Amino acid sequence: MTKRPPLHYIREPSEIYAQSFATVRKEARLDRFDLSMQPLVTRLIHSCGMVEIADRLAFSPNAAREGMAALAAGAPVLCDCEMVGAGIIRRYLPTDNQVIVTLNDPSVPTLAKDIGNTRSAAAVELWRDHIDGAVVAIGNAPTALFHLLELLDQGWAKPACILGFPVGFVGAAESKAELAANPRGCNFIALRGRKGGSAMASAGVNALAAGLPEDRT
Amino acid sequence: MTKRPPLHYIREPSEIYAQSFATVRKEARLDRFDLSMQPLVTRLIHSCGMVEIADRLAFSPNAAREGMAALAAGAPVLCDCEMVGAGIIRRYLPTDNQVIVTLNDPSVPTLAKDIGNTRSAAAVELWRDHIDGAVVAIGNAPTALFHLLELLDQGWAKPACILGFPVGFVGAAESKAELAANPRGCNFIALRGRKGGSAMASAGVNALAAGLPEDRT
Repeated sequence: MTKRPPLHYIREPSEIYAQSFATVRKEARLDRFDLSMQPLVTRLIHSCGMVEIADRLAFSPNAAREGMAALAAGAPVLCDCEMVGAGIIRRYLPTDNQVIVTLNDPSVPTLAKDIGNTRSAAAVELWRDHIDGAVVAIGNAPTALFHLLELLDQGWAKPACILGFPVGFVGAAESKAELAANPRGCNFIALRGRKGGSAMASAGVNALAAGLPEDRT
Repeated sequence: MTKRPPLHYIREPSEIYAQSFATVRKEARLDRFDLSMQPLVTRLIHSCGMVEIADRLAFSPNAAREGMAALAAGAPVLCDCEMVGAGIIRRYLPTDNQVIVTLNDPSVPTLAKDIGNTRSAAAVELWRDHIDGAVVAIGNAPTALFHLLELLDQGWAKPACILGFPVGFVGAAESKAELAANPRGCNFIALRGRKGGSAMASAGVNALAAGLPEDRT
């Protein structure tokens, strides 16, 4: 075996975080966002390595504030898939908030057939008793977001904030456009277009829960 | 409450998949890739909604074939974080392969201090007994990839295939450049630059495990 030269890279977690967030601040023109939104935008960018997503965020003016207040008051977090749940840093949650993922509930496959929709949409039906004032984090399925909007149209109580980050080529851009048009008057934060994903949805929750690392003591 | 018009969207899972993959095929010029790579490239693009990542993939010629063969022969999957593990579709795995995530092992925080590196890097140390012939899926931490390369330099047995998708602003591009330079002669698939993420790493594993949905009966 040939001996290779040592690899040089930053190994100190606090330095990695600090440099990462400094780079985001330098490149993202965060001052175009309200102060309440800046930690969230920073974490979103950090989660995907793409500064350019800042240009395509849509959000209601009080979305971050209402989402933070809801978590501080004990609201649950409703996620459309296990990956979103796995990305939420539990120790950040201010009141040990429940993180609820119903996608793998045993009733979901039958429910999906009954309502003629995907499993992801059917799983949203199981949020009924938790939706009032909750933080919703959708990072995968456009049909989950579409169906939530349908259920709100049917009279469901409003969540405190909807983080809309479904991803992909069929329905993602469309479901987020419907969310952002906001005829329902819900607080929301969404990334327009095809991009999105679980990491962004989790990062949004982590920001609402705890801001940035430098804000925490 | 004003009655709103019904929402129109595709609700049939097989139709969503078919349209998604058809869009990827139309836009991504997959014929520039070897047949063995095409399902994997398709799933990677599908996982993030970005056709343009196809332009920045780096890979060794036999990476997909070796990764598939390893899973078919029972190799474990080693993941750098829980989100990657959560995104692997277990029923796709051909031999009920083990999915191993060591990040939250109780020994990791102390180990990280001992080796002067991140928890993600320390967790890689715990892969020692599993690395020979394994499929590695890194979707978060550049330090996990860097440290794996250091351990290979120290004489660790080679994995069958390294899926390199760490993401972000510090070390992601650099660690993937080092992987892709490939002085160690490992099979690898990586996305150059800052972009990456758990969803891509999981999608890579799912592709090695099961190809595309239309390939499955």
